[in-house]
Amino acid sequence: MSDSHEAARLAIERCRKLASFSEDAEGTRRTFLSPPMRDCHRQITGWLEVLGATTRIDAAGNLRGFYEGEDSGAARLLIGSHLDTVPDAGAFDGILGVVIGVALLKGLRGKRLPFGVEVVGFSEEEGVRFGVPFIGSRALVGTLDEDLLRQQDKDGVSVYRAIEDFGLDASKISDAGVGDDVLGYVEFHIEQGPILEELGRPLGAVEAIAGQSRLEFTFVGRANHAGTTPMHLRRDAVATAAEWITAVEREARRVPGLLATVGAIAAMPGAANVIAGEARVTLDVRHRSDEVRDREVKALIVLAQEIVQSRGLTVRHRMLSFQPSVAMSPSLLDQVEESIRRTGAAPHRMVSGAGHDAMIMAEKVPSAMIFLRTPGGVSHSPAEAVLVEDVARAIEAGSNLLAVLASAPALQRRTHLA
Amino acid sequence: MSDSHEAARLAIERCRKLASFSEDAEGTRRTFLSPPMRDCHRQITGWLEVLGATTRIDAAGNLRGFYEGEDSGAARLLIGSHLDTVPDAGAFDGILGVVIGVALLKGLRGKRLPFGVEVVGFSEEEGVRFGVPFIGSRALVGTLDEDLLRQQDKDGVSVYRAIEDFGLDASKISDAGVGDDVLGYVEFHIEQGPILEELGRPLGAVEAIAGQSRLEFTFVGRANHAGTTPMHLRRDAVATAAEWITAVEREARRVPGLLATVGAIAAMPGAANVIAGEARVTLDVRHRSDEVRDREVKALIVLAQEIVQSRGLTVRHRMLSFQPSVAMSPSLLDQVEESIRRTGAAPHRMVSGAGHDAMIMAEKVPSAMIFLRTPGGVSHSPAEAVLVEDVARAIEAGSNLLAVLASAPALQRRTHLA
Repeated sequence: MSDSHEAARLAIERCRKLASFSEDAEGTRRTFLSPPMRDCHRQITGWLEVLGATTRIDAAGNLRGFYEGEDSGAARLLIGSHLDTVPDAGAFDGILGVVIGVALLKGLRGKRLPFGVEVVGFSEEEGVRFGVPFIGSRALVGTLDEDLLRQQDKDGVSVYRAIEDFGLDASKISDAGVGDDVLGYVEFHIEQGPILEELGRPLGAVEAIAGQSRLEFTFVGRANHAGTTPMHLRRDAVATAAEWITAVEREARRVPGLLATVGAIAAMPGAANVIAGEARVTLDVRHRSDEVRDREVKALIVLAQEIVQSRGLTVRHRMLSFQPSVAMSPSLLDQVEESIRRTGAAPHRMVSGAGHDAMIMAEKVPSAMIFLRTPGGVSHSPAEAVLVEDVARAIEAGSNLLAVLASAPALQRRTHLA
Repeated sequence: MSDSHEAARLAIERCRKLASFSEDAEGTRRTFLSPPMRDCHRQITGWLEVLGATTRIDAAGNLRGFYEGEDSGAARLLIGSHLDTVPDAGAFDGILGVVIGVALLKGLRGKRLPFGVEVVGFSEEEGVRFGVPFIGSRALVGTLDEDLLRQQDKDGVSVYRAIEDFGLDASKISDAGVGDDVLGYVEFHIEQGPILEELGRPLGAVEAIAGQSRLEFTFVGRANHAGTTPMHLRRDAVATAAEWITAVEREARRVPGLLATVGAIAAMPGAANVIAGEARVTLDVRHRSDEVRDREVKALIVLAQEIVQSRGLTVRHRMLSFQPSVAMSPSLLDQVEESIRRTGAAPHRMVSGAGHDAMIMAEKVPSAMIFLRTPGGVSHSPAEAVLVEDVARAIEAGSNLLAVLASAPALQRRTHLA
């Protein structure tokens, strides 16, 4: 067995171990600063300190493990992902990226690089406890503000209070922020989708995180008796919404890279023998290009208006959320691809349809993401898995990246990376 | 003002008065043997007795007002509809047919016919209190059985108990049954649909009550992340159901007289950012011909199977309810049409898409229905209305029908009517 396979087996075993730190007796759920998060911190801290890293839990509850470079004043590279989970989670979403960070330090066998490496385990990315995601990474880029600190969970506990209750000092949030000495941020994460598996590629290099528009459409017709209203006199909101949903899917299939999803639908009054007078549906639209996404959202709105006009109904829509696309650092992306190629694998350049901490970190530091193939595309489920060979290749690619960066003069001045 | 217009105004006024007998402080709700039903009985009984009719409340809570014929042993014609209402009801659904029955007796001005006339106010047709409709008319045809008597309302009160609590003797249900002396049953009822209004006709002659099939379909795909699953790798249950709903509507528009409705739809998990793994929809199919309905239900099932196969999903369905079409008496229908024609109006021969007491009565006696135009097709709503001229014409048609039947030798032997 090669070193990287042994490291991969250990990483997977560690992820499985960490998955046992859960708020639930069965299954994994580990939300922001919940009691099992303390066990998680203790465990990872132990692994990091053995390797000579200095650890701390910052005021936002992020685990930080700093492995100094050759020069104690050298800049640092951040490697990390999130430690929190959704309910009934798998063992790899997020935390694998932290465990791979530990594996990369281990792979150095005490060797020092021209830069320091800080492993970061973000306290919160999923948005489960407070309905707002990225609490951990926002602290690093300085956007964990008063408004966010006042957000309450379902028990009325604020982010601020949760931090204090965990024994941290919420007034020191700003100390969690990254300085000018950060060279970049690299995040390993499972793809949580089927693309790499379909292509037969172990690793993907993320070039951008897609922008999202989320809307709600309400089709308004006329509720009527299903037995007394002839077909040609109906103003059926469900049939109208169905025509539009079919058109939305057709449009998304036509435009390369466009994702459009109607995930929720409700009919009013919603009885078998009543023609629906109202149908409410959600629309989620994503694309790497904000321009394409905006154009397509407008087109789908027009499509809805045309369909209702031809049927004598009306439609209204409202924007639920909106998030622009975030590009990863082009130069760091090149170096990630080179590092993957050196493992003997062809990197697949791809767009992440889901949000990640790298999206937040990119506001302040050059950022990159490496996706690992996800069997069946399954995530947010206990069935979530990774292949040993893919994790081994990810660790190899990470080692290669450290070597590539160590030999790159750009590394001495982070502005050259962006 | 003509006599019939005066009678129509009185009938409408009486319906409005009866609508004030309600279980609710605001709006009309009068379910099976509820306290306001007693006021309703008392009021109508008063109107009937003034006209020389003998009244009783039968053991199933039906109001019966018998106006004897020339010969005390003569057969009888039943004229009626139901006294109960849905919640937040209008003033005309059902009860107008009873009030028109009273108006027809009044129009006789004491004159006796070769047959008796029994005005029937059915105690229950809507199925609101016990979830089972037609309790009143079932008693007349002898199908209010032990099973039905044991049905309980949401407070655990059985039909049997409700009858006893109202002061009636539930052991005497069989006395409510009609005998061989019944010539036929005629029901005036608002259309509760838009057809007569669209055609500009005041009255319709119902030739059949459409059969109904009610089904539930469950489309099963694969729930997945809306941001990480490319369009071509999706098994989207909502998009698949939408394609089928569109096809259902297309098929119903293609086949004359077919009504097909998807009134309820639910997506699981039903989140904006998750491709639905499951979509559950209802299907209500009606047609006057059972053969056509059965064929079309099968065709829509096959259509669902073809659509899921082409998309890699599965579908299952189950029958929720099934009711064959019921024909009205052809000879009575002819006489109804002749009676409408004599008012100067062209009768519109039509199918009732909704169920009515006439459907139950037809099991045992020749039955007919006359529909009154319903402004806007609105029913089961306080906005429910009728036009004075239409009610006047309905009363005229009823008078004509009594005259037509009085001169028809068939009337002496009810077997000739069927």
